[in-house]
Amino acid sequence: MLYLDDMQVGTKRSFGRYEVTREEVLDFARRYDPQPFHLSDEAAAETHFGRLAASGWHTCAMTMSMFVAEMAVHPQASLGAAGVDELRWLKPVHPGDVLRCESEILEVKPSRSRPDMGSMRTQTTTYNQHGEPVLRFIALALMRRRPAAG
Amino acid sequence: MLYLDDMQVGTKRSFGRYEVTREEVLDFARRYDPQPFHLSDEAAAETHFGRLAASGWHTCAMTMSMFVAEMAVHPQASLGAAGVDELRWLKPVHPGDVLRCESEILEVKPSRSRPDMGSMRTQTTTYNQHGEPVLRFIALALMRRRPAAG
Repeated sequence: MLYLDDMQVGTKRSFGRYEVTREEVLDFARRYDPQPFHLSDEAAAETHFGRLAASGWHTCAMTMSMFVAEMAVHPQASLGAAGVDELRWLKPVHPGDVLRCESEILEVKPSRSRPDMGSMRTQTTTYNQHGEPVLRFIALALMRRRPAAG
Repeated sequence: MLYLDDMQVGTKRSFGRYEVTREEVLDFARRYDPQPFHLSDEAAAETHFGRLAASGWHTCAMTMSMFVAEMAVHPQASLGAAGVDELRWLKPVHPGDVLRCESEILEVKPSRSRPDMGSMRTQTTTYNQHGEPVLRFIALALMRRRPAAG
């Protein structure tokens, strides 16, 4: 288990593989983001998306899925996240795309008021199979500190 | 249809109603964010969540759903969003909660390079049935300008 104390500013990781299917893009869009360019190629062709594109929130969710899978391999004492800054949808994500992630630890800060926890700022970038960044954001994650021995 | 030209800084809107069900919280978590506190009351009880809590990205998706439903009533010439700033998950969202939204237009800016479009910054806050804010973010939305007559 990795605790806040194990985290080093500057550490980079590359992880994840997520195949984007048309069925999943449509499922998510119908339920949460039924805008025309997330529902049909024809409507998307009239916009800068060009063809059917995943909801930006869906891309966030797929990125989270890769992040949690990575945490299953390298468990972290995560307490969830307080928020996200500078989230940018940089390129459309289309059915058939294969996504992967890179993350970098920007800041590690023990809490002053809660000695058992602290926060960490990480920048995550999601890439498509062409190496193009499609999503980038800075997350403010909360983590436990390593329990004292004994 | 509302175009960028129809948008006024300071305009506030209150909209949406979304009942959060246990089944949907679990469905989203299993697929995209299978962390223990999003999967069971027991694991959540050991954290600040207290009991089963929706994934933060799920709360974003539910908020988007209310936003798109509102746009169906008051159609906007939306071109999607470029990104989000200052996203904060302020309180856990639990099964049984009923969410609603308030939004305020912070900035309206015609594009210099693209006379047919522009951008708008809006702050959206999602509240639970107790009037407590659970999510707040500033979105950078892209919109068409009103087509010239004739």
